[in-house]
Amino acid sequence: MQFQLTKEFIENLRESLDNRSEEQVLNLIGELHAADVAEIVEELEVEEAKVLYSYLSAEKASEVLINIDEDIRDKHIASFTSKEIAEIFIENLESDDAADVISVLPEREREEVISNIENLEQAEDIVDLLSFDEGTAGALMGKELVQVNENWSIKQCIREMRKQAETVDNIYTVYVVDDHEKLLGKLSLKKLLTAAAGKKIADLYDVGLKSCQTYTSSEEVANMMEKYDLVALPVLDELGRLVGRITIDDVVDVIKEEADKDYSMASGLSETVESTDNIWVLTRARLPWLVLGLLGGVLGARVIGIYEHDLKIMPEMAFFIPLIAAMGGNVGVQSSAIIVQGLANNSLGFGGIFQKLGKEFSVALLNGFVCALLILVYNLISSDSLILSYTVSISLFSVIIFAALFGTLVPLLLDKYKVDPALATGPFITTVNDILGLFIYFLVGRMFYV
Amino acid sequence: MQFQLTKEFIENLRESLDNRSEEQVLNLIGELHAADVAEIVEELEVEEAKVLYSYLSAEKASEVLINIDEDIRDKHIASFTSKEIAEIFIENLESDDAADVISVLPEREREEVISNIENLEQAEDIVDLLSFDEGTAGALMGKELVQVNENWSIKQCIREMRKQAETVDNIYTVYVVDDHEKLLGKLSLKKLLTAAAGKKIADLYDVGLKSCQTYTSSEEVANMMEKYDLVALPVLDELGRLVGRITIDDVVDVIKEEADKDYSMASGLSETVESTDNIWVLTRARLPWLVLGLLGGVLGARVIGIYEHDLKIMPEMAFFIPLIAAMGGNVGVQSSAIIVQGLANNSLGFGGIFQKLGKEFSVALLNGFVCALLILVYNLISSDSLILSYTVSISLFSVIIFAALFGTLVPLLLDKYKVDPALATGPFITTVNDILGLFIYFLVGRMFYV
Repeated sequence: MQFQLTKEFIENLRESLDNRSEEQVLNLIGELHAADVAEIVEELEVEEAKVLYSYLSAEKASEVLINIDEDIRDKHIASFTSKEIAEIFIENLESDDAADVISVLPEREREEVISNIENLEQAEDIVDLLSFDEGTAGALMGKELVQVNENWSIKQCIREMRKQAETVDNIYTVYVVDDHEKLLGKLSLKKLLTAAAGKKIADLYDVGLKSCQTYTSSEEVANMMEKYDLVALPVLDELGRLVGRITIDDVVDVIKEEADKDYSMASGLSETVESTDNIWVLTRARLPWLVLGLLGGVLGARVIGIYEHDLKIMPEMAFFIPLIAAMGGNVGVQSSAIIVQGLANNSLGFGGIFQKLGKEFSVALLNGFVCALLILVYNLISSDSLILSYTVSISLFSVIIFAALFGTLVPLLLDKYKVDPALATGPFITTVNDILGLFIYFLVGRMFYV
Repeated sequence: MQFQLTKEFIENLRESLDNRSEEQVLNLIGELHAADVAEIVEELEVEEAKVLYSYLSAEKASEVLINIDEDIRDKHIASFTSKEIAEIFIENLESDDAADVISVLPEREREEVISNIENLEQAEDIVDLLSFDEGTAGALMGKELVQVNENWSIKQCIREMRKQAETVDNIYTVYVVDDHEKLLGKLSLKKLLTAAAGKKIADLYDVGLKSCQTYTSSEEVANMMEKYDLVALPVLDELGRLVGRITIDDVVDVIKEEADKDYSMASGLSETVESTDNIWVLTRARLPWLVLGLLGGVLGARVIGIYEHDLKIMPEMAFFIPLIAAMGGNVGVQSSAIIVQGLANNSLGFGGIFQKLGKEFSVALLNGFVCALLILVYNLISSDSLILSYTVSISLFSVIIFAALFGTLVPLLLDKYKVDPALATGPFITTVNDILGLFIYFLVGRMFYV
């Protein structure tokens, strides 16, 4: 059903592109969806891609462009002149996509492209959209929508809708506004189909429409649309006037990006990278966390160094260093992940920090008890040293409890001070709990045999 | 803009519910969206929730029910009789939601509920939907949609659409079928609004509509809808007949669940848990991974035990045990996370396993070199033992390379053998790399001073 990209396909296409055989190229990709063509174009060199764009209609070329991965898209855009960008791409894109494309250009080129847009209304819309901060509803919304005035009749309304529908790909909702453009509600297709032609919109529209402001954060927009199962969300300005709408396809991207970002953070990747990125990008995303781990390791070495004398008295203590460190890390990551996910999904409940710590404490008591017991049984069977057996179990129990509390507390505190709590998961929590665990381990050990 | 649940609100509501004061309850929640009421109901005891449902219209009550978290919903459903479930809830739900509710009931109650549904057509739709396996398009789709025959005129089409629209909440797409119910294409609202009343649908509809089969997996459905920016996807049976459609709101849930599941796995949680779950559920989700970590720790202890003699010769080697173990774990998690995310997003590219291993190898060389150098400089400054300095750096370099290759290979292999690659991330990779790292460390150490 879905198009499956193969190496052979790309090789064929490349050959046809190199031969400048428009017919062969169009034979290969002519029938494909723009999103599929975009996947293909991502595999080509910039020069090859440029040839391919030239064989497509401006409309298809711009649809392809907007579906390409951002990093690659920026390179493609840079290979065109301002005039080409305006005429081939921008004029065929919806306002939000056009603004996305233009926003990556340097200031001067940006102005050049905008001055080359023939449709003045479209240029105004784009300039308008470019003024909103990234990460807000204003930057996410498009200007294309269908709106009708409450004072119109059904007949007048259908006439206007025909006109407006020209520029709108998917209508989804017909918005009803008053004479001052203030959003009043929506007109359902059902009512539009069933009402008499002379009826006025004011008597027909539904109120209680969910909406957001231009400055609402994209996370909140995503949460709202997900929670209320919306496919389109109208955006209002400070005066309650309808200035745009956000469609679900853009929000699905936001939801995916958020989830991917949290996952990356938890895995010790400082940016969302893909396995297809180049080696330098992949290294850059990973090295900072590895250096943090290194620092933790050095501190761990210092902690053990402090207790070097004790290690000489009971060298078997070294055996269980990895166990203690690993368990502290595992428990910490588990606890922080639950909090981070709860914060992201808005599902933490409304208990305070102390209630959450209390609960984690109970869970940790249970987990700690089971784990400490298991390792005690193992050690009693396999080790000759009673002291070592007790030391390992008691410190494991303590480490599990401390790591759980710590893993819960840190993301909650970060969130309170408006820092991304996902920072707390992964390598950070693991590293800190490693050191904490070692301290506890040797402290308990010393208590036993001094 | 969005409703914010507070502790005070719940206390007020509880009091009103306990006093059986219908008016006060409706004052509190009457104007709220069903999704907000659902959030509230999740905080109530089952008995309180039951009182609340009885104050709502059957329509609102069922909308609330379908928005509740699944675990809690199951408990609520269990508190009603089969007759009540059918009459209050099922009759007011769309077919896919109704099937979801019924599917959690035991076999006998399921039949009772279905036999209590008055609308025979609805009952048939539900029985039909219940026959599909979970995780397939068939189980995800709803039967409600608007379809028109290619042989109808615009006028006839609008008349039929009015009728069908009664049962459909959101129309999205008007599907065009032939006399055998085979899907041909879609009729755009634009064309419907602009065409003459006498025109035939056959001359107006657009072809090339994306569709899926009843047996298509929900992951593939989600990927398709995301990639092609669809709000609704028609589902076909083996004969190409239109049997249902999947809407984007259900798919957003699938996307979220998938992402949450991968995140949980990477964090060592065997099921998707929320911080509001009870202590037993939270413990059960975490203990298996902790026991795995314990096992790894015991194996690690054994590895060190083998080299006990070496430790006595060079006790400072113990200092860097946590560093080696932690770095192996961190690198492994990073590598596997990139693969798991690539597999989930279908963005791995089409290079083979060896190409990916080659790339990881290059990244690991870079990372390994930097980290080994950093720790060498530290050790040369702070430690008296040249042998220890070299041992730590060389083994760290080797551990980083092995962990990266291992972290890449395991998820790719799991995926090849149809096991969820997310299983490979988090505690599993960390634990295995801990042990691997210790082996390498002591092996290198022995090479130096024997």
